[in-house]
Amino acid sequence: MMASNSPCAACKFLRRKCNQDCIFAPYFPPEEPHKFANVHKIFGASNVSKILNEVLPHQREDAVNSLAYEAEARIKDPVYGCVGAISVLQRQLIRLQKELDATNADLIRFSTNQGSSFFNYPSNWNNDS
Amino acid sequence: MMASNSPCAACKFLRRKCNQDCIFAPYFPPEEPHKFANVHKIFGASNVSKILNEVLPHQREDAVNSLAYEAEARIKDPVYGCVGAISVLQRQLIRLQKELDATNADLIRFSTNQGSSFFNYPSNWNNDS
Repeated sequence: MMASNSPCAACKFLRRKCNQDCIFAPYFPPEEPHKFANVHKIFGASNVSKILNEVLPHQREDAVNSLAYEAEARIKDPVYGCVGAISVLQRQLIRLQKELDATNADLIRFSTNQGSSFFNYPSNWNNDS
Repeated sequence: MMASNSPCAACKFLRRKCNQDCIFAPYFPPEEPHKFANVHKIFGASNVSKILNEVLPHQREDAVNSLAYEAEARIKDPVYGCVGAISVLQRQLIRLQKELDATNADLIRFSTNQGSSFFNYPSNWNNDS
């Protein structure tokens, strides 16, 4: 009862009345005050509300969660934000692809060597008369 | 001469005088109006300037470029923004790791098989008396 009457984290932060049609309320529960504080600091409340109004209702939760992720990453790393995570992942992908290429080359070399020991053609194969 | 006198893309967008100490000017040249328009739309000019003032001067170019990357990604994909790229990269990493594990398993199986054909123990090894 108390929870449903208390304003959402966004309205509490912005010190405004939280109405039933509040666009923030479903995604910024009062128990997670940092989630709104972070997106407010990085994107601004009006940009967040613009994005929420721009996407379909069933996409809003994903939109808020990705904005919260980006905001947290930018607060932790003001220079690179979550683009830093993209760089790390891209470097890991390149490393793993190289490792896979090397392992595949080993496998091909191995199977070629094994092949030559499997098929014991007579040494005079071409001289057989 | 003209270029150095014309306001930077940020000051032109914000219709204000571009001074010599403009924090935006080194990173938002007039030739790239979209770069500022994008970060303004997603983060807001004041948040961008706050971030620029928060980081060291030699980090500002990287900060602006990562903000421009994030802003463009959010405009293209309002639901996931550049977090969508992170998900794609994470899925690629998982797929590649599985492929590497499978190739390593093949390599171990191959080398074990080859080993057993190399060493031709007599079939009555344990019954030899």
